Amino acid sequence: MRKGETTRQAILEHATALASKVGLEGLSIGGLAEDLELSKSGLFAHFQSKEALQLQVLDHAAGRFVDSVVRPALTTPRGEPRVRAIFERWADWPRQMPLPGGCFFVSVVSEFDDRPGPVRDRLVQLQKDWLEVIANTVRTAIAEGHFHADADPEQFAHDLYGVMLGYHHAARLLGDPRATERARRAFEALLRAARRPAA
Amino acid sequence: MRKGETTRQAILEHATALASKVGLEGLSIGGLAEDLELSKSGLFAHFQSKEALQLQVLDHAAGRFVDSVVRPALTTPRGEPRVRAIFERWADWPRQMPLPGGCFFVSVVSEFDDRPGPVRDRLVQLQKDWLEVIANTVRTAIAEGHFHADADPEQFAHDLYGVMLGYHHAARLLGDPRATERARRAFEALLRAARRPAA
Repeated sequence: MRKGETTRQAILEHATALASKVGLEGLSIGGLAEDLELSKSGLFAHFQSKEALQLQVLDHAAGRFVDSVVRPALTTPRGEPRVRAIFERWADWPRQMPLPGGCFFVSVVSEFDDRPGPVRDRLVQLQKDWLEVIANTVRTAIAEGHFHADADPEQFAHDLYGVMLGYHHAARLLGDPRATERARRAFEALLRAARRPAA
Repeated sequence: MRKGETTRQAILEHATALASKVGLEGLSIGGLAEDLELSKSGLFAHFQSKEALQLQVLDHAAGRFVDSVVRPALTTPRGEPRVRAIFERWADWPRQMPLPGGCFFVSVVSEFDDRPGPVRDRLVQLQKDWLEVIANTVRTAIAEGHFHADADPEQFAHDLYGVMLGYHHAARLLGDPRATERARRAFEALLRAARRPAA
């Protein structure tokens, strides 16, 4: 990696952690320059505008998510084992990328769900891509005969997202010591239902 | 109601709507005074401090939630019908209290999950109270023989919360036209699982 690229990665890493606490709107090129003892003009050379910075932070976090969760899960055997790998890797993501403000995407979603613009558009695209990866993995489980032919891949993806949001709520806000166990039980219930004929 | 109390309610109503967009931290006594064409000193007389205002806004929203969702649901017959009433009333809550920034509580939770202090404490208490109402309702369904004796009331409450968070995510961020239908199907799956012996 060129030195400029290494610096850019370091800035994005710091900005991602910071955004998990203060939101993407809370980021500023001047503030980052101060934190990292870099020149403000140097940061402008990297990012041009606050919006460009926000988009790059989003892509940086998404890249980390793909590396830690998506790609390793997709190397596991097709079918239920892969669905399980998605859950396990996803549940482990806060440990892979520990951030002061909790899950980067949960924070950013709530910040941008009513702020139209390029950042929100990119976020929606990333979330839809991820739901599609989950749904496609469920399709492999149907194809392999692990799940019932009537299992609904999009519904499963939607439900699994709800399980993860419920986990985040229980763990981060309520400090529920059983949050992980509850998420695991909710996931097992989804698996059981997918194995059965639809009602 | 005394005139002072009527004014206080009107202020809180406006502040709740505003907080759904800008967060509780985004509220200011000066800003509210300007919006409502009231004197800043008058608002200080009502709320003393920003934190007192935030706590009262939280309690105001919680009161509205109890009136629209909790109390009517608790007048329905014990057991599964009451569990269903909780879901239906809850799903209808955004229509009962339409706010520019979406669900008040979802916004505030994400804002305060890492901000220790009295506002977060109050929020945690409100959320725990609500989860307990759901769990107690599930207990009536077990007592009435509608749900299996091994159904887990706390897990059900946790899972239903996840369904609602998943709904909010799909509806608000993704603009999924099937968000309501998906939440309904997820809820029916929870009911089906509760009626069966635990695995």
